[in-house]
Amino acid sequence: MRLASRFAAVVLVTLSSAGMVVAQSASPAAKPLDEPRRLVSPKPGEGGSSPSEGGPDEKMLRALYTAALTNSPAYERLRELTVKFPGRLSGSKNLEGAVQWAHDLLRQQGADRTELQPVMVPHWERGAKESIRLAGGSPLTAVALGGSVPTPDGGLTAPVVELLSLDELKTADVKGRIVFFNRPMNPAHVSTGLAYRDAGDQRNQGPGAAGKYGAVGVLMRSLTLAHDDLPHTGNTTYLPDVPRIPAAALSTVAADHLSAALKLDPTLTAEMIINSRWFDDAPSHNVIGELRGSAHPEQVIVIGGHLDSWDIAPGAHDDGAGCIQSLEVLRLLKAVGYVPRHTIRCVLFTNEENGTRGAAAYSTAVAAKKEPHLFALETDSGGYQPRGFNLGNPAGDAAKRAARWLPLFEPYGICHFQDGGGGTDVHPLLAQGTTVAGLTPDSQRYFDIHHTTGDSIDQVNPRELELGAAAMAALVYLVDQHGL
Amino acid sequence: MRLASRFAAVVLVTLSSAGMVVAQSASPAAKPLDEPRRLVSPKPGEGGSSPSEGGPDEKMLRALYTAALTNSPAYERLRELTVKFPGRLSGSKNLEGAVQWAHDLLRQQGADRTELQPVMVPHWERGAKESIRLAGGSPLTAVALGGSVPTPDGGLTAPVVELLSLDELKTADVKGRIVFFNRPMNPAHVSTGLAYRDAGDQRNQGPGAAGKYGAVGVLMRSLTLAHDDLPHTGNTTYLPDVPRIPAAALSTVAADHLSAALKLDPTLTAEMIINSRWFDDAPSHNVIGELRGSAHPEQVIVIGGHLDSWDIAPGAHDDGAGCIQSLEVLRLLKAVGYVPRHTIRCVLFTNEENGTRGAAAYSTAVAAKKEPHLFALETDSGGYQPRGFNLGNPAGDAAKRAARWLPLFEPYGICHFQDGGGGTDVHPLLAQGTTVAGLTPDSQRYFDIHHTTGDSIDQVNPRELELGAAAMAALVYLVDQHGL
Repeated sequence: MRLASRFAAVVLVTLSSAGMVVAQSASPAAKPLDEPRRLVSPKPGEGGSSPSEGGPDEKMLRALYTAALTNSPAYERLRELTVKFPGRLSGSKNLEGAVQWAHDLLRQQGADRTELQPVMVPHWERGAKESIRLAGGSPLTAVALGGSVPTPDGGLTAPVVELLSLDELKTADVKGRIVFFNRPMNPAHVSTGLAYRDAGDQRNQGPGAAGKYGAVGVLMRSLTLAHDDLPHTGNTTYLPDVPRIPAAALSTVAADHLSAALKLDPTLTAEMIINSRWFDDAPSHNVIGELRGSAHPEQVIVIGGHLDSWDIAPGAHDDGAGCIQSLEVLRLLKAVGYVPRHTIRCVLFTNEENGTRGAAAYSTAVAAKKEPHLFALETDSGGYQPRGFNLGNPAGDAAKRAARWLPLFEPYGICHFQDGGGGTDVHPLLAQGTTVAGLTPDSQRYFDIHHTTGDSIDQVNPRELELGAAAMAALVYLVDQHGL
Repeated sequence: MRLASRFAAVVLVTLSSAGMVVAQSASPAAKPLDEPRRLVSPKPGEGGSSPSEGGPDEKMLRALYTAALTNSPAYERLRELTVKFPGRLSGSKNLEGAVQWAHDLLRQQGADRTELQPVMVPHWERGAKESIRLAGGSPLTAVALGGSVPTPDGGLTAPVVELLSLDELKTADVKGRIVFFNRPMNPAHVSTGLAYRDAGDQRNQGPGAAGKYGAVGVLMRSLTLAHDDLPHTGNTTYLPDVPRIPAAALSTVAADHLSAALKLDPTLTAEMIINSRWFDDAPSHNVIGELRGSAHPEQVIVIGGHLDSWDIAPGAHDDGAGCIQSLEVLRLLKAVGYVPRHTIRCVLFTNEENGTRGAAAYSTAVAAKKEPHLFALETDSGGYQPRGFNLGNPAGDAAKRAARWLPLFEPYGICHFQDGGGGTDVHPLLAQGTTVAGLTPDSQRYFDIHHTTGDSIDQVNPRELELGAAAMAALVYLVDQHGL
């Protein structure tokens, strides 16, 4: 892509949004046109040109986006969170360090009220690094699944049987063996979230199900579409009254290696050493801060993400980004001088990854206080370029109602409102009548680093992070002004 | 983001597209729902679920996307291009190596006809690495602008004057000085392409204009929204009958440092050493390959990108991605067994960056042969997640006409058709009556690495690259079937 021809004899072209030619001139000194062009369908990215155009809503959205994209502290805050407090798993010192850090930030930002809401959370630790290897052979890059029981003293060695689904447990001979679930995420899904969901039973339910059929351990292919040596952890769930067997995820490269080795030698055995341990529940907190509503202070609009992360992950996209964006919504509304009609509350939930106790504690408290919640917006799908929102309400028409705001959002690249349930942390409020929503960013890169050591600040683009915060602030403003 | 709660007592939630909650169940063993949900507005990412649904157009798009996302050679081809032939500037061995490589690929892919169209291109070389430093002081990270004349033997030392616009040349005292253009790209633009365009006069016209006012050299702030030490080159244009003065771009960190140093000492001098050289025009080629049309072989649909890159850049996003995607369109159409009605021609243009001689040669040949061109689609805005297309035709209604296909594209995340001129390489065909178009990917990350050493394969996500190719193939199919 270039700015203009070097040669006056050649047509001079200038660049508009992402490279299309918008102006034509015979003179190389001609200035690029800056006039808005006629639009047929949404024209993303033209939002920068006319801060004073339109009605009050247009002006407020422009002001929020300008504030978000100009000298925002968001990225440096995310750097600080992930560098100071990586591995913020429930029960860890780093999670509680992050809790205090975020609470201090809310106070510094001038929240009218802050609160640390106590929550008792599960406490699992990985212990000394796990080791998975072909018996007598090469190591396989792996991480234990979150919640996995440890292997017996001295480790576990057993033959490996490769399966592609939980259904195959019914017919395969898995007794005394290590089950290797190796069904890849389906790359034909455009949404990587759908591909994740469809392959996810292997991680979430696989060890429990394999234990029921007499397997002694589980290895699984990491839930990612990337082909590399980065293993992905995540929670697994055992069944009541069924033996709990140790489980680990292999990198996709290691999974391919193991699969190929099994084809050469179906009697192959593997050795697993997992040193994990469950402790008593530990104290933690939801971090809460709010701007008090001017007209209806008793009615609440929530924005939030989760502060905990997996133990091996810096948690930049999952969900440091969501926390920083939620803090940023309060900052942006104040920065543009907006006085909210309802109380705007930022909730940074604890223990989303392995228990959702933070979400349960928050919704339980809301029910006990009978505190009216108009709207709850979560962001927990990464800090990538935002593309839309998913919404749900008891009547099932939330997305349809919000769709009237599409024209306001289109200049900023937000182009859909779809039915959905918000996200794990705000979803419980739906049962109490709250309209819930979730930010939908681009999904292509998310599962490359999800639940890995690679979920670090360098994977986050500052402007994508800022655009997400701006989109959230804009939707909160519209709901606060007009209802949904 | 997680798959499901560890605790059966807590609501079990499952993930759909990018994290929204779609299913709810009291049983931890419940399987995630896979049924399509009611849509209010476009629902990106659901394209993976139902390959057999819909009419022939829906089925063909699904087939093209599945082929693009499953076992595609695109990313490994881009790796090969950028690793074997980085720095593909006009006149370089690497550009001609890439020409032969791409031509071989087209033949291997089973093109019905291939051609190397000869083009004489400008030949500028950077020579030994440039050096820019504060006189007697620290080096400033910089690269010479493309086309810059060299500094005199022994370099150039002169006082520096900082300006924010070309207009300020009229009143500032720049005679005998180095002009330092330091106007940043405007971060409030959502489209980084607009921010690039608005700041681009400093690079494209700055050295020419400063020479007219008696300046002896130009330094400029790199055209990027990133704040780092990576300098960005790009073409500059001198004016006829005006002294040609050497010019270089500083990294944004170096630009900030120079600006701060000038505030402390306005008499500061800088030393510039640039060792560039112009050579005689060199032979190069547009690389052409096509699938012959079954009904109207004489009528052509073009897809293309440019094969050249800046000398310092591997050229992964600019525009290796566009070339690989264009090759991929031919491969995908063949892979799904589609027999095109019109001739589908891939054109990999030479010399887009500093001359557009490839585009000129192609459009001149088309005019001379009176070869009817229905449609020409370019991709030269990076290999990021595609979001839409820009289109132009003589009647000015191309985007409006194409908008009827939005419902077909919405499941794949393409959500706009807007007015535009395609891109630098296809734009000349518009004057001959051809409908021109350009792919519009997400723009946030592009200018972080544009025209730098950092425009490398690791910045490209395989799926984003593949989705762009699929979107192009889908649009080509629709135009071939239905016209535009």
